[in-house]
Amino acid sequence: MEPIARVVPHFHEDLEGLKARLLVMGGLAEERVRASVQALVERDPGQAEAVRVGDEPINQLHVDIDQRCVTLIALNQPMAADLRAIIAAVKINTDLERVGDLAVNIVEAVQRYLTHLPVKPLIDIPRMAAIAQRMLRDALDAYVRRDLALAEQVLADDDALDNLKSQVFLELLTHMRAAPTTIEPALVLILISRHLERIGDHATNIAEDVIFMVTARDVRHHRPGDGHAGA
Amino acid sequence: MEPIARVVPHFHEDLEGLKARLLVMGGLAEERVRASVQALVERDPGQAEAVRVGDEPINQLHVDIDQRCVTLIALNQPMAADLRAIIAAVKINTDLERVGDLAVNIVEAVQRYLTHLPVKPLIDIPRMAAIAQRMLRDALDAYVRRDLALAEQVLADDDALDNLKSQVFLELLTHMRAAPTTIEPALVLILISRHLERIGDHATNIAEDVIFMVTARDVRHHRPGDGHAGA
Repeated sequence: MEPIARVVPHFHEDLEGLKARLLVMGGLAEERVRASVQALVERDPGQAEAVRVGDEPINQLHVDIDQRCVTLIALNQPMAADLRAIIAAVKINTDLERVGDLAVNIVEAVQRYLTHLPVKPLIDIPRMAAIAQRMLRDALDAYVRRDLALAEQVLADDDALDNLKSQVFLELLTHMRAAPTTIEPALVLILISRHLERIGDHATNIAEDVIFMVTARDVRHHRPGDGHAGA
Repeated sequence: MEPIARVVPHFHEDLEGLKARLLVMGGLAEERVRASVQALVERDPGQAEAVRVGDEPINQLHVDIDQRCVTLIALNQPMAADLRAIIAAVKINTDLERVGDLAVNIVEAVQRYLTHLPVKPLIDIPRMAAIAQRMLRDALDAYVRRDLALAEQVLADDDALDNLKSQVFLELLTHMRAAPTTIEPALVLILISRHLERIGDHATNIAEDVIFMVTARDVRHHRPGDGHAGA
């Protein structure tokens, strides 16, 4: 069987369409992270439930983008740089879909948290959410614009997120030790902070894919203090 | 610029070579999970440290497999079924690399756990590790053999893993409430159980990719009780 003929005229249009869809998906993922932490801060069970059941648009885009990537490659036999951009899209698509899942994990934890009295005023967790959202936005912009400096910025932001995660852990541990009734809700807040850290890890993965795509250089296993690690 | 000429004679050999490398990587990932939990059970700081610093072979394979996938597509312009197999390899490669990272997360938590007295005899966590290892092995075998039944088995195992995770959470919460000195080590055990759950999620992702690859049917967003969720 011969390969299907190259359909070059539409290729760059289709590739732009693919990137536009990834941006839409990134916007949806970012919004779900924002809404999940807003549900926590405002103690709003309705908002939590809306996030929990609201992952269908992202899931549909996930399937759609995956199929577009396969079709784009099969029909156009793209050259190295374009092929790397499409392979990057496959991976970014997976990362964004998992960010959508993590928003569900967060609001399920929020639903549990709301059955308790508040442990403390929430400062660092909303800060973590803001950083994670910005990382997602920057990583996607870096992909679309092939912007290396912005991708490097995402890697730097991940360190800030990891530091906040450690701070949240130690502070909540202190609460748990001082007042046993706070053990369960404080534990739930720690788990939420871990979900936000993982969202940052997904943004970091996207930024690393961008660097690989643009430079054909693999930075993924050469950074000191790799962001994935951390008990 | 024209596409590089098709080099069909080596294609299926190269594809088999790619699959063989994924199996090696899967074996390394599985071994790191096993070793990380063995370090916990045997309270062995040397073993924990060996896992922590031992992710180089997986990282090298990760880069190597990624590049092979791009090259295989660029040089051979594969047809739909083979293209889906290579795109699946790109994703599986990412999942296995993250399993390697999670083994680091586990042993960093183990190093922290070993600074405390044991909270309790460990039964469910080694059981979770055994299930996660089997899921990884089965998911990879399902990929190589295009075995749908085995892929479905992995999805079923993920439910068992989630149930154990919830059981671990509730049991350790009881310990924390009863004895405040156990708060920190019990919390660390909960985080380890979450890392193992995530390893199961990666195996589940691989199994879903296998089902998509074999049937060109997307099961990823149609399962009741999706394994990714859960506070």
